Amino acid sequence: MSTLAPLDAGLAEFLVPYLPAGGRHRTLTYAASLDSRISASRTEQTALSGPETKTMTHFLRSRHDAILVGSGTAVCDDPGLNCRLPDASGVLRSPRPVVVDTNFSWDVQQHSRAVRTARDGAGLGPWVLVRADAADGAATVGGAAEYARKRAVLEAVGGAVLPVLPVADGAAVYGRARWDAVFGALEARGVESLMIEGGARVINDLLALGPAAVDSVVVTVAPLFLGARGVEVSPLDGRHDMDAVRWQPVGRDVVLGGVLRA
Amino acid sequence: MSTLAPLDAGLAEFLVPYLPAGGRHRTLTYAASLDSRISASRTEQTALSGPETKTMTHFLRSRHDAILVGSGTAVCDDPGLNCRLPDASGVLRSPRPVVVDTNFSWDVQQHSRAVRTARDGAGLGPWVLVRADAADGAATVGGAAEYARKRAVLEAVGGAVLPVLPVADGAAVYGRARWDAVFGALEARGVESLMIEGGARVINDLLALGPAAVDSVVVTVAPLFLGARGVEVSPLDGRHDMDAVRWQPVGRDVVLGGVLRA
Repeated sequence: MSTLAPLDAGLAEFLVPYLPAGGRHRTLTYAASLDSRISASRTEQTALSGPETKTMTHFLRSRHDAILVGSGTAVCDDPGLNCRLPDASGVLRSPRPVVVDTNFSWDVQQHSRAVRTARDGAGLGPWVLVRADAADGAATVGGAAEYARKRAVLEAVGGAVLPVLPVADGAAVYGRARWDAVFGALEARGVESLMIEGGARVINDLLALGPAAVDSVVVTVAPLFLGARGVEVSPLDGRHDMDAVRWQPVGRDVVLGGVLRA
Repeated sequence: MSTLAPLDAGLAEFLVPYLPAGGRHRTLTYAASLDSRISASRTEQTALSGPETKTMTHFLRSRHDAILVGSGTAVCDDPGLNCRLPDASGVLRSPRPVVVDTNFSWDVQQHSRAVRTARDGAGLGPWVLVRADAADGAATVGGAAEYARKRAVLEAVGGAVLPVLPVADGAAVYGRARWDAVFGALEARGVESLMIEGGARVINDLLALGPAAVDSVVVTVAPLFLGARGVEVSPLDGRHDMDAVRWQPVGRDVVLGGVLRA
């Protein structure tokens, strides 16, 4: 486990207006290249941003009750999703990892990073949000046996499987209905502040929903191009403007904070 | 003709390392949304960046011998391509407009903005680079008669048609050979410093060629998303890193200066 660079004091101050301040708050955050790619391909994790903005990610995680990723990120990146940056009094406050995964395609194992992290006491057990009709798991990847195994892996570290996502005619429902179900399920379980980290599908969905879904946006732009075959952030439905925009150069990167306009 | 905002003094200083300093220098510059779109669609010009970075564009133009755009930009945007920002001694120094247009698809008219601008003494007559086998124009859009008419329009304001672009089997040649021909033709005519403004096809081509084609990059990022149907900047050939990177917040936008890595 590599050591984090210290948090830039100016950066912490810069971020204040975009952070939860008590009450419900959802923060959308990601790092992309100049050409708005978050990775060079769907199957590889690309080191994009510098050490300073990596520290920022952990600072942001420390300020949220939960951190959400899509199933693609869970499957491809095997993320830890914990917080490794202590607060001013030396306490580590990790957010609850949340994976949105209609068909439970994440092959979660004892040795998955988020599970090991929770077992070691360095993070919380992940919650996996799956289809509301999952029942005994027959409708999920691997069927009932795999479902039971994966649920046991999660529950052993304090995690859970939550069958809450809408389906219609057996297929996943996207858009507003999906996210209402996600946010509703999390709020019902006491999650007030939520950080949304990716991947591109999740980000593009939420940008399209705008301020109804997302209270603030924190984007790191890294000074390189990943090229047209990369995985891109760009909302499918067209233009979205922002208010309360500020930029902060951090190391080689720049960080934007803003609020989506209605 | 709207008045330009004054040039931000910090911005002029910020730009110095990325500007021509005597001798050959090619600067690639464009403004894009956070999702790397330069316009919302191919047929509309999108107001992206703020008044401060618009002034920057005119400052950059004042520091180059010529300004290059692709045929798509000439056709869709009817650009003026002159400089409206006086230098410290009050002099306006407009660059030579250059349009790269293999088949001469630009329907240049007496009332085209760049032509009017040149006629009014507020800019130089455009040079249009067309296919080397244009001869009497039979191989260009509109045939020989249109070719003669458009050439006369350009020549009347001190512009020219330069038949220099490579073709093979009757089709345009792209990539290195194309740009060697463009740069060679311009240098042979005394153009040392060249500013490349767009559109996306030109920018993506030149990013792919890297530091052999481009000496510095100045990108304005505007804090909005234009969406997946927009016209995007992203090199087709994959990753390109940068050196000498700096960021400068300017109004609501941020400006990046950098040098493409070999």
